[in-house]
Amino acid sequence: MGSVVKLHGLPMSTNTARVIAVLNEKGVDFELVPVDLSPFGQVPVLEDGDLKLFESRAISKYLAEKHSDAGADLLLRRGGRSLAESATVELWVEVESKHFDPAISPLLYEAVVKPVLGQATDEAVVEAKAAELEKVLDVYEERLGKAKYLAGDHYTLADLHHQPYLFYLMKTAKAELVESRPRVLAWWNDISARAPWLKTAEGMKFP
Amino acid sequence: MGSVVKLHGLPMSTNTARVIAVLNEKGVDFELVPVDLSPFGQVPVLEDGDLKLFESRAISKYLAEKHSDAGADLLLRRGGRSLAESATVELWVEVESKHFDPAISPLLYEAVVKPVLGQATDEAVVEAKAAELEKVLDVYEERLGKAKYLAGDHYTLADLHHQPYLFYLMKTAKAELVESRPRVLAWWNDISARAPWLKTAEGMKFP
Repeated sequence: MGSVVKLHGLPMSTNTARVIAVLNEKGVDFELVPVDLSPFGQVPVLEDGDLKLFESRAISKYLAEKHSDAGADLLLRRGGRSLAESATVELWVEVESKHFDPAISPLLYEAVVKPVLGQATDEAVVEAKAAELEKVLDVYEERLGKAKYLAGDHYTLADLHHQPYLFYLMKTAKAELVESRPRVLAWWNDISARAPWLKTAEGMKFP
Repeated sequence: MGSVVKLHGLPMSTNTARVIAVLNEKGVDFELVPVDLSPFGQVPVLEDGDLKLFESRAISKYLAEKHSDAGADLLLRRGGRSLAESATVELWVEVESKHFDPAISPLLYEAVVKPVLGQATDEAVVEAKAAELEKVLDVYEERLGKAKYLAGDHYTLADLHHQPYLFYLMKTAKAELVESRPRVLAWWNDISARAPWLKTAEGMKFP
């Protein structure tokens, strides 16, 4: 029996949930440890034997590759797939990181995290970031008219990386940004119904 | 003879230069076309046969993998390498994208781009972003005490992705952020002296 993977993080943190979602998708046992070890003072940090990794998106790619045969083919790298297919996964993983994240992360901080901390939401920030997010979701609405998932016909890491943020967004008044875009809504309904995701979402409760 | 790769972009754009640097490292012929095709209204966009990709970091990974045997082993995926090694490349690629880029990109916009456009530099933004950049470079200074390059003993995509931004930073008063950190400075002097990079840097001139 190999050593159990240790994940330092908090299950309600979107960055931690991104990694937990891959662990659940791949059926990998892990131990959750609420300690911060990254040089940037952030969770999650993964320990797998001697390897220590930080940055949630780098961790999730590592896990998706290490456990490539389990669960969904998250990187489209299994036999028979082309480099164009895996490059398309990487493209939409980048879009999440460089366009979706910078819009939705501060929006959720204002609308979800600050109330939990007993602080007042800055509605001007919410509206400004919602406007940015609309532009990104317009691109997704068009993309999802050409393909069932962001990277093509299959559920991949590109879809999964959006789930922790969208899970919280759908609990706010700004859920309308998704609900008003039929293809984005159908995509969210599909990916959020996956059994491994339901397991991840169970842990995403604020204290 | 295969069709020539088309790169839509501008050689003085840091995002375009990131891709050109990989093309030069790998010795790949390409045609530069100054047209914008991405759904987010940004360059670069790569056309390789039927495949069209945007997002500079996704393009550079695709090229590094497609031409894995040419030039430097940018992803540490050649035979004999471990998954831990390539995952470490991905980790530092993520650090550039999520920590270094958000600090240095607005700094350079203020200090380099605005003067070219005839606009006034906002010194308060320069100082705020310089303070953020210092924290990132402190992490690099420590990391480069343990390894010659960000991902370990070898020059990889993680180093390359920093070069377009650092090239411009070193032409500003904020070059001191690099010059005051001996290991970061030695790293920059090493990577900026590579022949493929010198070819890329030739095109990085504002009109």
